[in-house]
Amino acid sequence: MTATHNETAAGLRPYKLLEGRFHRLAALNEAAGMLHWDMAAMMPPGGAETRAEQLAQLRLVCHEILADPAMAGLLGEAESRREELDPWAASNLHEMRRQWIHATALEPRLVEALSRASSRCEGIWREARPASDFAKVAPALGELLALVREAAAAKAARLGGGLYEALLDEYEPGGKTASIDAVFDDLAGFLPELRAKALEAQMRRPAPLAAKGPFPTARQKALGERLMATVGFDFDHGRLDTSLHPFCGGTPDDVRITTRYDESDFASALMGVLHETGHALYERGLPQPWRYQPVGQARGMGIHESQSLLMEMQACRSKPFLAHLAPLLAEAFGHDDPAFTAENLLALYWRVKPGFIRVDADEVTYPSHVILRYRLERALIEGRMEIADLPAAWNEGMESLLGIRPPSDREGCLQDIHWYDGAFGYFPTYTLGAMTAAQLFDAAGRADPEIPARLGHGDFKPLLGWLRTHVHGLASSLPASEILTRATGRPLDAGVFKRHLERRYLHQA
Amino acid sequence: MTATHNETAAGLRPYKLLEGRFHRLAALNEAAGMLHWDMAAMMPPGGAETRAEQLAQLRLVCHEILADPAMAGLLGEAESRREELDPWAASNLHEMRRQWIHATALEPRLVEALSRASSRCEGIWREARPASDFAKVAPALGELLALVREAAAAKAARLGGGLYEALLDEYEPGGKTASIDAVFDDLAGFLPELRAKALEAQMRRPAPLAAKGPFPTARQKALGERLMATVGFDFDHGRLDTSLHPFCGGTPDDVRITTRYDESDFASALMGVLHETGHALYERGLPQPWRYQPVGQARGMGIHESQSLLMEMQACRSKPFLAHLAPLLAEAFGHDDPAFTAENLLALYWRVKPGFIRVDADEVTYPSHVILRYRLERALIEGRMEIADLPAAWNEGMESLLGIRPPSDREGCLQDIHWYDGAFGYFPTYTLGAMTAAQLFDAAGRADPEIPARLGHGDFKPLLGWLRTHVHGLASSLPASEILTRATGRPLDAGVFKRHLERRYLHQA
Repeated sequence: MTATHNETAAGLRPYKLLEGRFHRLAALNEAAGMLHWDMAAMMPPGGAETRAEQLAQLRLVCHEILADPAMAGLLGEAESRREELDPWAASNLHEMRRQWIHATALEPRLVEALSRASSRCEGIWREARPASDFAKVAPALGELLALVREAAAAKAARLGGGLYEALLDEYEPGGKTASIDAVFDDLAGFLPELRAKALEAQMRRPAPLAAKGPFPTARQKALGERLMATVGFDFDHGRLDTSLHPFCGGTPDDVRITTRYDESDFASALMGVLHETGHALYERGLPQPWRYQPVGQARGMGIHESQSLLMEMQACRSKPFLAHLAPLLAEAFGHDDPAFTAENLLALYWRVKPGFIRVDADEVTYPSHVILRYRLERALIEGRMEIADLPAAWNEGMESLLGIRPPSDREGCLQDIHWYDGAFGYFPTYTLGAMTAAQLFDAAGRADPEIPARLGHGDFKPLLGWLRTHVHGLASSLPASEILTRATGRPLDAGVFKRHLERRYLHQA
Repeated sequence: MTATHNETAAGLRPYKLLEGRFHRLAALNEAAGMLHWDMAAMMPPGGAETRAEQLAQLRLVCHEILADPAMAGLLGEAESRREELDPWAASNLHEMRRQWIHATALEPRLVEALSRASSRCEGIWREARPASDFAKVAPALGELLALVREAAAAKAARLGGGLYEALLDEYEPGGKTASIDAVFDDLAGFLPELRAKALEAQMRRPAPLAAKGPFPTARQKALGERLMATVGFDFDHGRLDTSLHPFCGGTPDDVRITTRYDESDFASALMGVLHETGHALYERGLPQPWRYQPVGQARGMGIHESQSLLMEMQACRSKPFLAHLAPLLAEAFGHDDPAFTAENLLALYWRVKPGFIRVDADEVTYPSHVILRYRLERALIEGRMEIADLPAAWNEGMESLLGIRPPSDREGCLQDIHWYDGAFGYFPTYTLGAMTAAQLFDAAGRADPEIPARLGHGDFKPLLGWLRTHVHGLASSLPASEILTRATGRPLDAGVFKRHLERRYLHQA
């Protein structure tokens, strides 16, 4: 604080009033978050309708807090005296303005039309996907897209930047298409050759042994909880439960992660748990003093995904950690199974297998799925492509990026819910997260060369300590790009991720 | 609706606006209810602070909805055209006014002082109780009582009626001390002789056999869920979980009940589950069209407790049902245990054992505990007794009502949290519930003489159907006394309950 006490008292009043309003907003959003968790993990089916009503009313209350006519004045007054705020408070004010813009940029008529159109489109999609019938959903998707583009234009007018960036900003605040294009083009040029070489090298190695199941849910869960504790999850401040789609919810003081179990496969729930634990550790590491303020919240989906992928892909699929894991698996599921060796776990968890479905993709092919979607959704939003052309463009993109062509739209442009639910601008965060994860893990290892080896002893403390300082504790005080630059010495580029893929998939290191 | 369409449109506007506001209020209260359930059944300990913040903000939002300055005008306008409303809408408006009075009768200063004083007093009580040190908590209780009396005066000025009735109204809307006095005095005069005779008869019978434990939690839970389904609980609209203090929470569409298990005792969790199931069935049976309106909510704690006690005490401890239960217990816990006979279950579940602790009391002695507390708390609220005189008055009352004298205040006036938490006026609802349960069950059996015998076949449909029509479906459309009178042909009196106790505890029928 640079102002004197008297000036502070006078000058900060609008800012302090804003803090009070955003505090309430955050607490109510947390309440809604808990109800969402319950809906996925606990709620009996017959509770759906009343839960929707509770959430709708909470959402309305939250919207009214942001859309209150006094808000614009308070923001303007506080901003006119921004120089009196310390850097965190100034960032907080910046984030308040951003949230306010997103909440008020759209006329109520458009918000309602979007909500109706996306419910309708999603409903039709749920029938069109199994039938592989894109034509059935195309009209509804076209109507939804028109509204999304209208929303993008309204937000772009307030945020500055292009149409696509206005949508991206909700998931990746301050994200720029120019930077995404640069790293995605780099990666898209690199991946086909890497993939071919990795598959060739893989063919020369023995195929992984399948472990003998079944793997009882209770044991999978116990092992998952043991590994969560190893990684640093604090069960005084969180839980592990079961839901159809794994996610991380709750609040920083009460982080609820979920997974799903397949008793014929031990591998997927386990890595799913470690992935969500990465998200959970980020939430838990957000700074307590800013707990109910916008600046104290997670920076965006790119950084969030970097924390889950850093834990899952960089740390827990590393050679040292898989060596640590092998005897734990033997202990949990049977010592006599030859599948539970460090070598076999490498063969299993480092397997490359190009396929049509994004959510089943391995680390090497996943980015191609994302780059395809990013390019297509940008073209749609920017009016360079029609809905009718989507299936063909999808299939051509798959051919060129992944060398395979989906036999049907069900395995093509109908596979993901995102667009049909109105969520455009989300996809790139998956691969921004993967690249950010590689760059952060590399920087942590350069800052403390012991870090990778400690994982082999189940010791995540040095890694977690570094993340707490360089990522978690910064929350939204800086733009994502600045967090990364300060933590790693440079802005995001694809280089570290490319070297990581080469090392793991070509040199098996 | 008696008005023409045009008149309706104009005249109902304030009422319709109120419906909208109360709809939001109900949905937000339901959200808070779910968070309370989570806090008791799911939340990790470290989530307590942030949960308190979520609930405090939700409570503030709800209070602001009720305390909005426009509310008084809307209520007045709607009431001035009450004759245009149909009976349910008119009752709804009446309940709106009642909620509004309770929310606005106290100045914010008093609300805050009450909240602080009750937190403080409860904290001291948590130390004073195990130490049996009443003097330690007496000053805090005195301060709290002074504030509660101030609140009672403020509410009485708005509601009409006496100080105690103003507090009672929050739990038992429209409850009158004159009626309570009449039935409690009747009961207090009757119970000592009944108790003596019951104990004498009991001594002539063999003592119940103890069943051989342990009784694994998982089996207790499975049997509990089986019996819940038998009684009519719909697991598409509810759950059974575990918490320190059993309760029924959630919403009518998603009723969450809890219990706690003791692996050395099969009997208590089971009856606890059936008790909470009675509460749950009431919630579930509230009328859907009035789901988010005040008139659609449960009538009060007396009727609520009548529904749990009707299921637990009247139906599930009846001779026919215990005969139905015996083989299910044998199946769940071991066929070779001679304790699982119908005769032994009667001896176990119909045992009378006077004791100091209310929550451990049997059906015969429980009302004496309640009558004592009711008389004492009325004397305190009406200024006829000082806090310092409470321990002696308690012990004398126990002696005169139950024939036993607590050896210490821990087993005396320190045992219950209610007063130390500021909850005066709640106690009588337990025994109003017990008497109401007996009167309703009796009326159901007179309406359909098959009902008691059907319970012996695990068939609760006729009983539940009668309750749906005569109690659940009426919600808050009528005063509790009127619901009872219409359902049973007369207002509450102690007669049916007295005859029930004589039949069961003197004649073993």
